Amino acid sequence: MDNVLEQIPLAPSAAPLKPTSRTRVRRKPARGSYDRELIHEILDRALICHVAFVSKDQPYAMPTIHARRGDTLYLHGSNGSRMLRVAAAGEPLCVTATVVDGIVLARSVFHHSLNYRSAVVIGSGRRVVDEREKRTALEMVVEHIVPGRAADARGPTAKELRATTVVAIELEEASAKVRTGPPVDDLEDLQLSVWAGVVPLAVVPGAPVPDEKLDGRVALPRYVARWRSG
Amino acid sequence: MDNVLEQIPLAPSAAPLKPTSRTRVRRKPARGSYDRELIHEILDRALICHVAFVSKDQPYAMPTIHARRGDTLYLHGSNGSRMLRVAAAGEPLCVTATVVDGIVLARSVFHHSLNYRSAVVIGSGRRVVDEREKRTALEMVVEHIVPGRAADARGPTAKELRATTVVAIELEEASAKVRTGPPVDDLEDLQLSVWAGVVPLAVVPGAPVPDEKLDGRVALPRYVARWRSG
Repeated sequence: MDNVLEQIPLAPSAAPLKPTSRTRVRRKPARGSYDRELIHEILDRALICHVAFVSKDQPYAMPTIHARRGDTLYLHGSNGSRMLRVAAAGEPLCVTATVVDGIVLARSVFHHSLNYRSAVVIGSGRRVVDEREKRTALEMVVEHIVPGRAADARGPTAKELRATTVVAIELEEASAKVRTGPPVDDLEDLQLSVWAGVVPLAVVPGAPVPDEKLDGRVALPRYVARWRSG
Repeated sequence: MDNVLEQIPLAPSAAPLKPTSRTRVRRKPARGSYDRELIHEILDRALICHVAFVSKDQPYAMPTIHARRGDTLYLHGSNGSRMLRVAAAGEPLCVTATVVDGIVLARSVFHHSLNYRSAVVIGSGRRVVDEREKRTALEMVVEHIVPGRAADARGPTAKELRATTVVAIELEEASAKVRTGPPVDDLEDLQLSVWAGVVPLAVVPGAPVPDEKLDGRVALPRYVARWRSG
């Protein structure tokens, strides 16, 4: 099958992004970052994102699968999706990807928290019309979830491509926010006889369940057997 | 410490919600549901939600921890949070909680998917001013993440309560969307020599990491040792 992933050259990205009034981390600014690599890493690690958009004065947050290639974020879905219609029309969007890394148990209810990494991308979409870019984006979406898969699965037909909307958002205005480490309790709480610490969390795969219709001679691919989140 | 969780009586909830133009599931409507119990279950299972709100004509999706009690959803955070200021002002919100249950590998790129459960709540916030309700909500937020924890940790002081904004959203307009099961490939793809099936995913805890400052005589509580997502 066609694998066009490597055919479109990538522009190099370098300097950290400039915080704007929309992406500057205000709450706990020490946790904020505008580092491209960190933003990329979070977007790549998160299996899904939530896309905020406005339709008839009502904001929505809709879960969807994304993919990143260089400094471009791709969303995709059916032509009938309201979210994609709004996104393809160039309306303002916010794409947020969040990875939960652990539960932070402090001695006080007040200082409980989560360890997490989130990336917030502000921008507006560009409908992808170039067939090569569209194909690449759709394969990237599959690769994002299961690296190695796009070269194995059947690629999109012309009809499937026509039924699918792909929207690109450039990573120009974005920020990351990260919390790591132990609970931070008030000094006077340290003597309380309350357990404190972190419960690390990870997304872990169970045993793959073959499709009932699968020809028994098709072996489980190595990229599935070895799958790990991120 | 105070445990006020059980002090406020719960109104019974019963009939499924009525779909509206804002919550009706349009894409793949067979996956949609307006069943309260299902919506509750998804909200309870998801550790975090994403809140969509609008500030200066820009939509945002921000991750946060929520809690549900009966048909009321609670959000909380610092008084300085932009999201909470907008929410407490009664502006339109969308709160979406998503649980990813598995990766669906189809023979074609086009039919790849995720198994997931999402709950989308549309509404506007009410600032919680009653101290008892505020305390209950904050304890529910901790209980939502670690059941059993609120009765163990130190409860909020008056000062901590004043520093915290709590917003309630009634579950009146909401929907769920669920995908389960194997990949659904096109008939003509079933003979392809491509592995197809589902990789189940779960959020799994690692070994708890005690805070370095923890008094070694404080044992790991049973509710932490037994913690499982949901």
